[in-house]
Amino acid sequence: MKQSRLFTKTKKEYPKDEQSINAQLLIRAGFIDKLMAGVYTFLPMGLKVVKKIENIIREEMNSIGGQEVFMPSLQPKENWLKTGRWDSMDDLYKVKDKSDREFALGPTHEEIIVPLVQKFINSYKDVPFYVYQFQNKFRMELRAKSGLLRGREFLMKDLYSFHLSEEDFNEYYEKAKKAYFKIFERVGLEKQTYITFASGGSFSKYSDEFQTVTPAGEDTIYVCKKCNVAINKEIKSEVKNCPKCNGDDFKEEKAIEVGNIFPLKNRYTKSFDFSVADEKGEKRELIMGCYGIGLGRLMGTIVEIFHDDKGIIWPESVAPFKVHLISLKQDEEAEKIYNELLKNNIEVLYDDREMTAGEKFADADLIGIPIRIIISERTIEKKSVEIKKRAEKESKIIEIKNIEKFLGNY
Amino acid sequence: MKQSRLFTKTKKEYPKDEQSINAQLLIRAGFIDKLMAGVYTFLPMGLKVVKKIENIIREEMNSIGGQEVFMPSLQPKENWLKTGRWDSMDDLYKVKDKSDREFALGPTHEEIIVPLVQKFINSYKDVPFYVYQFQNKFRMELRAKSGLLRGREFLMKDLYSFHLSEEDFNEYYEKAKKAYFKIFERVGLEKQTYITFASGGSFSKYSDEFQTVTPAGEDTIYVCKKCNVAINKEIKSEVKNCPKCNGDDFKEEKAIEVGNIFPLKNRYTKSFDFSVADEKGEKRELIMGCYGIGLGRLMGTIVEIFHDDKGIIWPESVAPFKVHLISLKQDEEAEKIYNELLKNNIEVLYDDREMTAGEKFADADLIGIPIRIIISERTIEKKSVEIKKRAEKESKIIEIKNIEKFLGNY
Repeated sequence: MKQSRLFTKTKKEYPKDEQSINAQLLIRAGFIDKLMAGVYTFLPMGLKVVKKIENIIREEMNSIGGQEVFMPSLQPKENWLKTGRWDSMDDLYKVKDKSDREFALGPTHEEIIVPLVQKFINSYKDVPFYVYQFQNKFRMELRAKSGLLRGREFLMKDLYSFHLSEEDFNEYYEKAKKAYFKIFERVGLEKQTYITFASGGSFSKYSDEFQTVTPAGEDTIYVCKKCNVAINKEIKSEVKNCPKCNGDDFKEEKAIEVGNIFPLKNRYTKSFDFSVADEKGEKRELIMGCYGIGLGRLMGTIVEIFHDDKGIIWPESVAPFKVHLISLKQDEEAEKIYNELLKNNIEVLYDDREMTAGEKFADADLIGIPIRIIISERTIEKKSVEIKKRAEKESKIIEIKNIEKFLGNY
Repeated sequence: MKQSRLFTKTKKEYPKDEQSINAQLLIRAGFIDKLMAGVYTFLPMGLKVVKKIENIIREEMNSIGGQEVFMPSLQPKENWLKTGRWDSMDDLYKVKDKSDREFALGPTHEEIIVPLVQKFINSYKDVPFYVYQFQNKFRMELRAKSGLLRGREFLMKDLYSFHLSEEDFNEYYEKAKKAYFKIFERVGLEKQTYITFASGGSFSKYSDEFQTVTPAGEDTIYVCKKCNVAINKEIKSEVKNCPKCNGDDFKEEKAIEVGNIFPLKNRYTKSFDFSVADEKGEKRELIMGCYGIGLGRLMGTIVEIFHDDKGIIWPESVAPFKVHLISLKQDEEAEKIYNELLKNNIEVLYDDREMTAGEKFADADLIGIPIRIIISERTIEKKSVEIKKRAEKESKIIEIKNIEKFLGNY
């Protein structure tokens, strides 16, 4: 894409109404726009990052048998009355239509998925199965001041699993954990992310959280110094020792909850009287699990981890483009290289704007595309370009004919 | 995908609460589920169709310079007050938060896109530009009884174009028309779809609709017998003659509005005082156009056009799978062919269920995948399979080794 054609622009000033690093950088670099507290628009480059994260999650959810659906946001009050959450869920947005019929604006989809699958599942032979979606969620958050980390409207992947027995659920739970670690590894967060023993909310004693350590975190966790597991502060008074090694030597850290897995047991299948006959003809209530990842929150977390004082440093797997091609008054040569890269399906942002080298480099640092290729008079004379990785200080000169080989090896 | 693994199932009975053919067939075949009037879940196969439609539209929007974004559904009341639509728009859902602050639930995004782009666009050099999104829209429809044709919550592509002059707008408008026809051609509706002169609503005298002729249509149009253009009944009393050939020989038809293009002029840029300095330093209010396509409505329209008394007949471009592989107690051979097709990136639904041939064929007809491959004892003996197209009556026997050649030529 040619940068001159992008309708967004970078901003020099930090937005005054944002305290979080992720929102400050993402707004300044033109990835998101704030509509109001906790509600953001994804701009062209921001949406590219979201789509990359979405595809990584989709691949991993498909690999553990997930079937993708798309459920509505407008949800009947009756379903929420059945589970008791119409009155108990504090952050539920409620809407009325002309005839004063009320609806919930989906903050989660247990109330929809259970009666939905119930229409199709009649026998133990149909179980287990796993259904997921990417959907906008709505939650009336009181404090929404952490940029993409806590939204009132936010994109989420939610998977629901259905099982005949606790044992089968536990088995799938382990598979899902592995898929989650694969996701955090693929987006570059494997070093900072710990599985964390946490409160299960109202329906289960404990749950598993995936917490990414960063000073921006709103949670406090205790990481076992021996194992790669942690305990959330909220249950530290009950759980004194490491659930894995039984040790008691912890490091206190701030962390962001980037994913969670809840054992729902029969909490929702009971509400909708969802059971099937087992092999002996006996009625069995199904056991459920719920597995969430917030896409915007994950994007914000990546920015909290990967940035310096000049801007964002995207991991290649989620970067909006692989290459930032910068022409320093060498548009003819740059255009040739640009077309060559496009022809080879390399995602490239081409800075064809009329600006000084300093302005272009500052923007490139702020935007944070992994590889920068600079076309200047000095190197073009030698049929070469200057290549610099965003994450590294040094640049190198390579011949134009070797660009693709370089990018292929990268 | 193995059909035994799909959590959805086909239904023999027509849903009693649906009058429209599209909803009846899509529900029976397991593509959608009705949550309430005008609100549907897209099930795994239904979502595959939606994604194919989405990708076709995305490619065509990108080809006319569209930049994709994703704007919020929760929208500040102030923006809607500015355009006057907080009070005038009859089908607007309104939501309150805990502090009684009010929001609109986006039925369209003019109130968001204008102040958004205004933050970036300062000069005539930044214009024109074109921004689009795929987003859920919410409209408090009184009558929502046409299945996917009219929803209270529905997926829509909306593009907004911004111009310095009416002339530039008109030029882009023609390009967008062509892109729209390309979309309707690619989804198989080129024969039935007419550009239709229609009312412009409150802010412009006329607009262009794309109307697909089918008895299921809620609109009445008059198609000029000479040209491929039509006039919507709503303006027929004002517009007597064909806008293209000036003729007056029309055929009355029922039709579905599958897309529309509105010239918005300065209706919304004025509300937000959005202007730029032109080359002479003079302030110019920007001219806007708005271009919509409902994805669910398009999917429903395709079903209204392409079906018979046995079920849906998907055009290949939007079919959930290319091939429906049916094993008649020849699972070993079928599995081999299934894996071979997957290896060649052919999208295939493999009916590996324990059912009679009759049940499998009835389901295949209902689901409507373009090509059916039947693996039975009779043909396997001859190292062959039976191939039948959903749209044709006759089947043919071809050798297993020639399957891919056949599919490639199809």
